[in-house]
Amino acid sequence: MLKVEHIGIAVKSLATAIPLFEKLLNTPCYKTEEVASEGVTTAFFRQGESKIELLEASTDSSAIARFIEKKGEGMHHIAFEVEDIHTEMERLQQEGFELVHTTPKHGADNKLVCFLHPKSTGGILVELTQERKTL
Amino acid sequence: MLKVEHIGIAVKSLATAIPLFEKLLNTPCYKTEEVASEGVTTAFFRQGESKIELLEASTDSSAIARFIEKKGEGMHHIAFEVEDIHTEMERLQQEGFELVHTTPKHGADNKLVCFLHPKSTGGILVELTQERKTL
Repeated sequence: MLKVEHIGIAVKSLATAIPLFEKLLNTPCYKTEEVASEGVTTAFFRQGESKIELLEASTDSSAIARFIEKKGEGMHHIAFEVEDIHTEMERLQQEGFELVHTTPKHGADNKLVCFLHPKSTGGILVELTQERKTL
Repeated sequence: MLKVEHIGIAVKSLATAIPLFEKLLNTPCYKTEEVASEGVTTAFFRQGESKIELLEASTDSSAIARFIEKKGEGMHHIAFEVEDIHTEMERLQQEGFELVHTTPKHGADNKLVCFLHPKSTGGILVELTQERKTL
C-alpha cells in the first residue's frame, strides 16, 4: 500500500458537516460528487497527501444510512492507495483477508476500488483504491 | 492542519493485531511504545507520510478498554499534525470546538497532543499533534 488515500466519515447531512469540517480542517471543501451506485453523496477536503471524504446517504437503503442508524455519525472506512489493485487484491486474499467483491468497482474521485470485509481486518472497513489510468 | 499524522485503531490484543496489520499493510510494525499516563500500549506502522497506530488497553480503566467495551474494535481517532499546537487550539476554540484538555499533553511518539471532544466534531475523536522540539 502506498499511502492513506482518504478517511471516510459518515455524516447525516453534508449541509451541516461541510461548514463544520471546513472550520475544523481550516481548508475548503474542494469537491462534492454523487456516487449513485452506492447511494451516497461525497464531499472532499485535502490534508497533506490524503483526503477526508464525508459521506451522506442519498437513499434509505444506502450502507451509510444503515451505518449511521447502527453506530451514529463517525469514521466509516480507511482507503489506501495501491499501485495495482488486482495484484493487491490477490495478495490480500492469499493472506486470508476477505474481499467484499471480487472485481474492482468504480468509486468516487475517478478511482477503481475494492473493500475488504471488516471481520477479516479487526473491525476496520478497508478500501483499496487505484487511480483510473486514462489511455 | 498539515497532514493526517496517524489514524488510531483500538484493538483487544497487540499480539494478534500486529501480525494481522503487518499482513494487511504489507509493512512491518516499526515501534511499540507504552503510554502509561493513558493506560495504553501503542504499535506503529508507516503508510506514506502518515502512520497507523494500534492501541491496546494496559489497564481496565483505560479509555481504550471502555471504547472496545462499548463499540468493539475499530477506528478510534484521527490525528492531524499542526505547526503550532497552542495557536491551533486557540483557533479551534474560537471556532466553537470543545477541547478535552486546555493545555497540551505528552503523547506517544515524542508529540505534544490535544484532543477535541467528539460531540463538537460530528462524532470524530480528533487529536492535534505537534512534534516536540528539542532545544
